[in-house]
Amino acid sequence: MNAFSAMFQRHTRGNNEIQDITEDLRKIVEKSGVRIGQLTAMVIGSTASLSTLEFEPGLAKHDVAAALETIAPADGHYEHENTWHDDNGHSHVCACLLGPSLALPVVDGGLPLGTWQQAVLIDFDTRPRHRDIAVTVVGI
Amino acid sequence: MNAFSAMFQRHTRGNNEIQDITEDLRKIVEKSGVRIGQLTAMVIGSTASLSTLEFEPGLAKHDVAAALETIAPADGHYEHENTWHDDNGHSHVCACLLGPSLALPVVDGGLPLGTWQQAVLIDFDTRPRHRDIAVTVVGI
Amino acid sequence: MNAFSAMFQRHTRGNNEIQDITEDLRKIVEKSGVRIGQLTAMVIGSTASLSTLEFEPGLAKHDVAAALETIAPADGHYEHENTWHDDNGHSHVCACLLGPSLALPVVDGGLPLGTWQQAVLIDFDTRPRHRDIAVTVVGI
Repeated sequence: MNAFSAMFQRHTRGNNEIQDITEDLRKIVEKSGVRIGQLTAMVIGSTASLSTLEFEPGLAKHDVAAALETIAPADGHYEHENTWHDDNGHSHVCACLLGPSLALPVVDGGLPLGTWQQAVLIDFDTRPRHRDIAVTVVGI
Repeated sequence: MNAFSAMFQRHTRGNNEIQDITEDLRKIVEKSGVRIGQLTAMVIGSTASLSTLEFEPGLAKHDVAAALETIAPADGHYEHENTWHDDNGHSHVCACLLGPSLALPVVDGGLPLGTWQQAVLIDFDTRPRHRDIAVTVVGI
Repeated sequence: MNAFSAMFQRHTRGNNEIQDITEDLRKIVEKSGVRIGQLTAMVIGSTASLSTLEFEPGLAKHDVAAALETIAPADGHYEHENTWHDDNGHSHVCACLLGPSLALPVVDGGLPLGTWQQAVLIDFDTRPRHRDIAVTVVGI
């Protein structure tokens, strides 16, 4: 039985920037030595999320952001902003709705993602951010 | 310590069809022999998601789809469709927002779901699809 | 190798009440004795979800609820309500979109959440509810 922990960093521009983190996760699975088990990744902080996406510019630079703008418009009214006198109420709301973490099965020592399915970090914040992603892998 | 891997298939009609996959997951937990631990299931591909739902026709055939249509309308403008000349931009967006996977605790050799809470596959794509769901169970 | 199971309860007022459950999860990790591994928490039932949020009143009492009202308005039309003659169609839809569970890495015997990032229970139902949250921790 194996339990492995790793952390990696990403710099983002915020504003719904989406980054492909598949290779980071694959390398961690490889290093863990786990053949069958589970990976859990979490972005630390309350204005970013992890998910999967076909990582191509149409979706990653436009379409996902357009849907987020429907759910929580950047220029909407947010009580959060009254509390802190900042401008990222919508960023917090999006992060809560999408969730901070991604749980994936580990099969044959790898991640069984589809060919056009990448693991992604989405940064909803309104300014560039340094992000830490914590990952653990458990299995045999 | 146990780590068990399984895969199952579903044919869907796409177009937000929702299917109950609770029994598939329960059988995999049973086969794994795990009494206390965790199950992680992931649908392979970038236009479908897993979640839980009270699986009754009102929600499964109408209400969830209506909310998805608010977030990402099928006839909206998607840059993804310009890239690939297809029609499923909204399907990709929904899959990214809901996520590909479902992590559940395993307790007493089963899944502690509520009586009216079923594990479900939601297929957002615009045509019938063959779906593979990868599952691992880890625990003792 | 360790696999630990626990359950805790929360009373809510429903109507999108959000409660901070970070300490409940931290205590369970501590009791499990796991230093490196994974925690999976799931709220039992189909009208509530788990996520993370900066737990401050602006977001927790107003902003998240406002976004949910955009996605699935409380006074919208739901076929679920025709089936059961109740009023919580929107609650079921929100719970399906956000998901019932939260998977988190366990690192150094704790949860690597950010300073302003709390684990939360969101209860979408239209009346006060008693909620059971099932948790397992697996690792070494």
